[in-house]
Amino acid sequence: MSDDTRDVMRDGGPIFDRVVLIGLGLIGSSLARALRVHNVAKRIVAVDASLDVCQAVDRLQLADETHTDAAVAVRGADLVVLCVPLGAYEAVAQTIAPHLPNGAIVSDVGSVKEVATNVLVQNLPAHVRVVPGHPIAGTEHSGPEAGFAKLFEGRWCILTPPDGTDEVSIERVAEMWRRCGSMIERMDAPHHDKVLAITSHLPHLIAYTIVGTAADLAEDAKAEVIKFSASGFRDFTRIAASDPTMWRDVFLNNREATLEMLQRFTEDLTALQKAIRRGDGDALHRMFTRTRSIRRSIIDARQA
Amino acid sequence: MSDDTRDVMRDGGPIFDRVVLIGLGLIGSSLARALRVHNVAKRIVAVDASLDVCQAVDRLQLADETHTDAAVAVRGADLVVLCVPLGAYEAVAQTIAPHLPNGAIVSDVGSVKEVATNVLVQNLPAHVRVVPGHPIAGTEHSGPEAGFAKLFEGRWCILTPPDGTDEVSIERVAEMWRRCGSMIERMDAPHHDKVLAITSHLPHLIAYTIVGTAADLAEDAKAEVIKFSASGFRDFTRIAASDPTMWRDVFLNNREATLEMLQRFTEDLTALQKAIRRGDGDALHRMFTRTRSIRRSIIDARQA
Repeated sequence: MSDDTRDVMRDGGPIFDRVVLIGLGLIGSSLARALRVHNVAKRIVAVDASLDVCQAVDRLQLADETHTDAAVAVRGADLVVLCVPLGAYEAVAQTIAPHLPNGAIVSDVGSVKEVATNVLVQNLPAHVRVVPGHPIAGTEHSGPEAGFAKLFEGRWCILTPPDGTDEVSIERVAEMWRRCGSMIERMDAPHHDKVLAITSHLPHLIAYTIVGTAADLAEDAKAEVIKFSASGFRDFTRIAASDPTMWRDVFLNNREATLEMLQRFTEDLTALQKAIRRGDGDALHRMFTRTRSIRRSIIDARQA
Repeated sequence: MSDDTRDVMRDGGPIFDRVVLIGLGLIGSSLARALRVHNVAKRIVAVDASLDVCQAVDRLQLADETHTDAAVAVRGADLVVLCVPLGAYEAVAQTIAPHLPNGAIVSDVGSVKEVATNVLVQNLPAHVRVVPGHPIAGTEHSGPEAGFAKLFEGRWCILTPPDGTDEVSIERVAEMWRRCGSMIERMDAPHHDKVLAITSHLPHLIAYTIVGTAADLAEDAKAEVIKFSASGFRDFTRIAASDPTMWRDVFLNNREATLEMLQRFTEDLTALQKAIRRGDGDALHRMFTRTRSIRRSIIDARQA
């Protein structure tokens, strides 16, 4: 890292001149807010294909410039962050590729990292530095109104730079997230995808399924499910209210790891089912006891 | 209902002279607190088989009297509420049966109502009025310290009195819960058990399973699951931290309805699994969209 870069980062001044956020949903709009609060960028540029979203961004004053055309927006950018669903990466990368300044950093916030990294590396020119990222933060709400600056505080952000990425670029992206309140972890993309398959993708799959099962009940039964949802069900509905397009793309792009974790889950569920059928109270009690210690660890790790 | 009873209930004065709560865990101790706050009983009597729990009850000043022996405690009671796991019902009912005053009401807070009702009716003398109840409220914490008076506010309480139970007794129990802030619903016990199988028992089963699946991972992988649990997993760990004995008894006593809902869930999960394997994005998007409206309904019903 050059002394200049270190100095800039040390004094709390802007890390980037022109940050372009593509996609102003929950994460993109939260990042826009956090970048402003923590003085990370001299200029914040918002890009969204939806004119409605652009108007909301202007109304909420989330950015210094708003564009529907990414090609125009990225001119002069030193950081571009893709905050769109994974399915849109290829088109966005191809749109911005010819217009990116030499040495610009391109990052993202996608939930699956191997596919995301490959699509970016394959579609962007060699002079661009690709530093993929994944902030482990979110809510069940979507859109620019749902974002808030504190979303990333106390949360992890995982960076998965491909081999050979220069350390200065990685450090600048890391510092951006630290300013937003996040802790940084680095790992390779395939490992990230395995970890998230169990911590995030499988839980969402399960939640979508159980809420779907309830949605199939007859109307009167469904009304009762809603009425008495406080008994456990409602916790699943929160997760199952997350953005459908984003989650479709997660499962399409992390297929193997998700199916592998689903296989393990199904085996465990079958064992529990058998214990219930047999009336094996000891087995049930044993299974229900070991899960408590994991909750304890999460509380201790301050991620509860 | 006699005019006297109506008057007593109307003026906000005590509904019962001597309420005996058996089992001072999360629900029992919350009820003790709420009864005191809302002036529901002239005298609150706590019974717990554990001397530690009795000492905690005394220290927290949750009751006017504390006993380890239910037989002694129920003398002179006009209401007894079982707040113990279902597996303890038979022993408790047999212990108190010879000592219950003529016409005493016996209620409970158990999560499964058909078995609970049968055990109470079969083991208590004919002069006792059995009014089973189930407050749809709780947290993942256990024990007398975890309780709080507001636990039942804005929540439903389902009463499942057997055919022929006198209306005055039902109304007195209903009024107790209303004073604690609950809304009352009446249904027959088998129907209750079907509704709760999908809203509560299946969600807990699923949560216990997925947290168990994570617990089986190698130590380093488990550390990462805890670290990055904010991405969805932690919501399941909260549910899966609930009391193991209580939940063992729920599954042993609501076997058929739980297995039936589990069957439906498994079919839906298989369909989703197939869509992921095939890369059928349209099917995934469709499934993920319909679950949002259920969340909306729960928020509208103020049960979120």
